[in-house]
Amino acid sequence: MEQEGLKLLAKAREETGLPIVTEILSSDDVDLVAEYTDVMQVGARNMQNFSLLKKLGKVHRPVLLKRGMSCTVKETLMSAEYILSSGNPDVILCERGIRSFEDSMRNTLDLSAVALLKEWTHLPVIVDPTHGTGIKSLILPMCKAAIATGADGLMVEVHPNPEEALSDGFQALVPEQYQKITQAIRPYLELEGKTL
Amino acid sequence: MEQEGLKLLAKAREETGLPIVTEILSSDDVDLVAEYTDVMQVGARNMQNFSLLKKLGKVHRPVLLKRGMSCTVKETLMSAEYILSSGNPDVILCERGIRSFEDSMRNTLDLSAVALLKEWTHLPVIVDPTHGTGIKSLILPMCKAAIATGADGLMVEVHPNPEEALSDGFQALVPEQYQKITQAIRPYLELEGKTL
Repeated sequence: MEQEGLKLLAKAREETGLPIVTEILSSDDVDLVAEYTDVMQVGARNMQNFSLLKKLGKVHRPVLLKRGMSCTVKETLMSAEYILSSGNPDVILCERGIRSFEDSMRNTLDLSAVALLKEWTHLPVIVDPTHGTGIKSLILPMCKAAIATGADGLMVEVHPNPEEALSDGFQALVPEQYQKITQAIRPYLELEGKTL
Repeated sequence: MEQEGLKLLAKAREETGLPIVTEILSSDDVDLVAEYTDVMQVGARNMQNFSLLKKLGKVHRPVLLKRGMSCTVKETLMSAEYILSSGNPDVILCERGIRSFEDSMRNTLDLSAVALLKEWTHLPVIVDPTHGTGIKSLILPMCKAAIATGADGLMVEVHPNPEEALSDGFQALVPEQYQKITQAIRPYLELEGKTL
């Protein structure tokens, strides 16, 4: 939807007071997207789009960098380095599942990568169990597990009417399911000294 | 060490009162190993050794079946089926990491497979974070995460003197580290209604 979509997001922010994270697909659009969004997301398919990363290093917006589906932990850190060394210190890493031979789930959520990244870097690491598994019933257990590995945040897909979603409806939770998850994870957050 | 090793294990059981799990490598040895051990372990490399599995179906000992390093969740269940349908109902599944492109860890511990298996089968599922990561400092976070995904047990390598271990010393914990982990996981077990 390009700029039209950004305007809708801005309207949603105005009405709800919630900050916006949205994906930036090309280095051409960096200035336009930065005008509208609070956090610039780099999707898994662009994790090694180095011209995009370098341009994001010049922007005064935090960058949410998703791990490429066939990229190692070290390569993920090297991609973060492109943004950091270009002048933007605010990078959030996201484990969203890697490609493997396992065919019962959309991806293989690599939670040991989260524990390893928490040792190797000061950058915050969040987890996306929705893309990581592609199976709604696995989102709660993998949220709890992600917290236990030290994750700093969770990213979960929610839609008021998943059947009519324009993409990924099969893996989106309805708001009631989302609310239940936010309750169920609280004791796990507490054990890690964290809150929602 | 073959039978000599089994005799040492039997002696250890006698002195400590602890039950024994040991690996069975060939269908030729099923009767011999069954004489000495409490649980028969099938290693990842033998998960699809179907003649071994069928023979284990005739033995009155629980079987600990480790997921093959390049086997899917469905194939793991099909291997369990060889044992079950041959007459032995006591099969324990074990997620011990799968092979992936990620090269910072020994394997990729697939915890979503645990959550999925807990939905798909009544069989108990345990997790081996030692082989799953090959990194000692990741064992505690991955134990906690495994519990959060619904795992029924954990398998952790311990050695009184890892430097002198005949195999896998680099990933073995010393008893003091093991004891700390057994303390640290208790609150996570409690949240799942489980005890040590």
